[in-house]
Amino acid sequence: MQAEIIAVGTEILLGQITNTNSTHIAQGLAELGIESYYQTVVGDNPERLASVIEIAARRNDLVILSGGLGPTKDDLTKQTLAQYLNVSLVEDAHAMTVIDDYFKTTGKIMTANNRIQALYPAGATPLTNHNGMAVGAFYRSPDSADFLLLPGPPREMTKMFDTEAKPKLQAAYGQQAQIYSRVLRFFGIGESKLVTELQALIDDQQAVTIAPYAKTNEVTLRISAQAESQAAAKAALDAVENQIKAKVGDYFYGYGDDNSLAKVVIKTMIARRLSLTAAESLTAGEFQSTIGGVPGVSEIFPGGFVTYANAVKHQLVQVPQTTIDQDGVVSEATAIAMADGARTQLQTDVALSFTGVAGPDELEGQPAGTVWIGLAYRQQPTTGHLYHFAGDRQKIRERSVMAGLDLLRHALTAEQPTEK
Amino acid sequence: MQAEIIAVGTEILLGQITNTNSTHIAQGLAELGIESYYQTVVGDNPERLASVIEIAARRNDLVILSGGLGPTKDDLTKQTLAQYLNVSLVEDAHAMTVIDDYFKTTGKIMTANNRIQALYPAGATPLTNHNGMAVGAFYRSPDSADFLLLPGPPREMTKMFDTEAKPKLQAAYGQQAQIYSRVLRFFGIGESKLVTELQALIDDQQAVTIAPYAKTNEVTLRISAQAESQAAAKAALDAVENQIKAKVGDYFYGYGDDNSLAKVVIKTMIARRLSLTAAESLTAGEFQSTIGGVPGVSEIFPGGFVTYANAVKHQLVQVPQTTIDQDGVVSEATAIAMADGARTQLQTDVALSFTGVAGPDELEGQPAGTVWIGLAYRQQPTTGHLYHFAGDRQKIRERSVMAGLDLLRHALTAEQPTEK
Repeated sequence: MQAEIIAVGTEILLGQITNTNSTHIAQGLAELGIESYYQTVVGDNPERLASVIEIAARRNDLVILSGGLGPTKDDLTKQTLAQYLNVSLVEDAHAMTVIDDYFKTTGKIMTANNRIQALYPAGATPLTNHNGMAVGAFYRSPDSADFLLLPGPPREMTKMFDTEAKPKLQAAYGQQAQIYSRVLRFFGIGESKLVTELQALIDDQQAVTIAPYAKTNEVTLRISAQAESQAAAKAALDAVENQIKAKVGDYFYGYGDDNSLAKVVIKTMIARRLSLTAAESLTAGEFQSTIGGVPGVSEIFPGGFVTYANAVKHQLVQVPQTTIDQDGVVSEATAIAMADGARTQLQTDVALSFTGVAGPDELEGQPAGTVWIGLAYRQQPTTGHLYHFAGDRQKIRERSVMAGLDLLRHALTAEQPTEK
Repeated sequence: MQAEIIAVGTEILLGQITNTNSTHIAQGLAELGIESYYQTVVGDNPERLASVIEIAARRNDLVILSGGLGPTKDDLTKQTLAQYLNVSLVEDAHAMTVIDDYFKTTGKIMTANNRIQALYPAGATPLTNHNGMAVGAFYRSPDSADFLLLPGPPREMTKMFDTEAKPKLQAAYGQQAQIYSRVLRFFGIGESKLVTELQALIDDQQAVTIAPYAKTNEVTLRISAQAESQAAAKAALDAVENQIKAKVGDYFYGYGDDNSLAKVVIKTMIARRLSLTAAESLTAGEFQSTIGGVPGVSEIFPGGFVTYANAVKHQLVQVPQTTIDQDGVVSEATAIAMADGARTQLQTDVALSFTGVAGPDELEGQPAGTVWIGLAYRQQPTTGHLYHFAGDRQKIRERSVMAGLDLLRHALTAEQPTEK
């Protein structure tokens, strides 16, 4: 079973964007046990696209095309494939409803070319696009290679590939490989340190593969087992997970590709009915915006403060002017006063505060990346925590938010859940 | 003059690394005015590598191979190419000295296979590796395509390509006309609508190409001209830009790949010394966090409010309880009261407010995506603006932030700059 990935897009050929789609699809093929010997990139040109489709179909059992499903004249992938397969294009009723609804909801005027996005090659199984309008397709061919059609924008492609295409590939070619996998999520440890800690374990594995992957500000491990049944896979994965946790369990916080430190923390706080607020200086609302992304957060989050200027730290969360004068605005005392003031204002169980130097310039003689986070947690004494983050302005702010969430996670873990 | 880039490496096929080498080389080719219609990835396998070399040589004038020049048994690129060209491999004396020196300096023991790194196809010009030991090569072929051999590690490849290969390509193929390009940024118009508006213009173009690209919540157009000089390119691009602006100028807000609506708005406000605050409900700090990412924003942004709960809207920005009771929390009256209250609290020139339904559930009988944005702008009457956004929770929040920035941009554009 061999597959080739063809990315369609002139902007890749011009070096304007990097072809991350092929990386993501290649990882998925490896997990499914489908071999891949070639990848191709071609522009939005029907003759050249037809020629690479022909070459790929000759040397593979499955050809995966991503890109060129959109509404513009440039987008010709499915038209070219339909011509190659000698089939017509037909409309997917569900996709057309989604397109109609979008234009109805937004009140925008639908142009005719938008209907093209609901078309797929006759005889294929249409694949739903959960993050966009262009429908995908999986075409089983009796006398050529099979074809998988995916959209080009990475957000649309990854979602469609992971949730729609992979199960269908597994069902179609299932006897190839039954691979079960599980994603473990870590925060507070770098990828290289994690790999060093686990090296012996990684080298020893026969039945289970351990694949580390560095995400923004965190690391995930995908552990995969090839097995006859889900029960057998579960036993193998459980055993390896326990060995991993014996070494780096302190940094483990949750499971799953579609998870985050914010989700784990906020869900725990909702379950324990602990309310939360924040006063943010350098992060300017990014912490509150991050927790605001978790559905249900309104049960425990009444609101909070962005206190950028010193006068506003005093006005809104009552940081004494003497504290700022004596200790400085980037200091433990200011962080503690901000957390206490925010909690007092909104009468919550917990408050976090962020004060520091986002850069690019230094502040009060302290370099960019110096950050104090204050934590006022129930009856415990309010504490200040010092960090030195590397990176540019945006990285420093993101890392501050993640560190704040990690402080909360540790406080929640340390405390026995109580009935309220 | 056409070139194809072939990246050699099984780790790319397995999705373990992303193929950034091809991106870098593609950018370089575009700068040199060399067209590129295909990219290929193949593993460290001599038969399959030979087959893609043959296909590439048939359809191009130049084939660029990166990867597989190292000392291990897997590394077979130059051996395979030499066989295809029917030439032997010869040793580069300078490269051999570098290898000898490395092992002398470090005291490590040199194994025989390290000598392989100094070999290149007879008849080629060897290319120095400033960041490693494997030599590169540029081979001019009288009866096939020309070949460029580059190492795989990005640090070695980029340095060799930029400093050694590019000047030789330019010398070999003369001064190809270079490609000059410019990025125009639009907000408030979808990709398909933009393309429909500009279709005649796109179809008409000979010397200038117009390439639309949908980014998150906005669209960019890259206009590119092949020209003999920068002045000639500028004239061609200016003419097309003016034609584009005549049709969709209302949606245009700025230039450049590394720009955003937030940057344009905040820089204008800094220049005009207009201070800004916000009261955010559904966006939960995302607007303030977004403007907080712009360096220098502290000059005009003292801070603001996240007012998630109704009680907090009253407590922090004095929305009257009767307004919430009578008009609802997602209403024009509440949006206006939030903007007015925030501005009064922090004494700024401008305030924005956001109240709406982020979803997934409806609120007060209004569906997810219903959003009111309030704008208190200097002496003008405070206004409320109603939106219906599509998408999930995160998309609705992002679109609200962008709509708020666009409201600000229009208010700034409408007002004649005044001295303060």
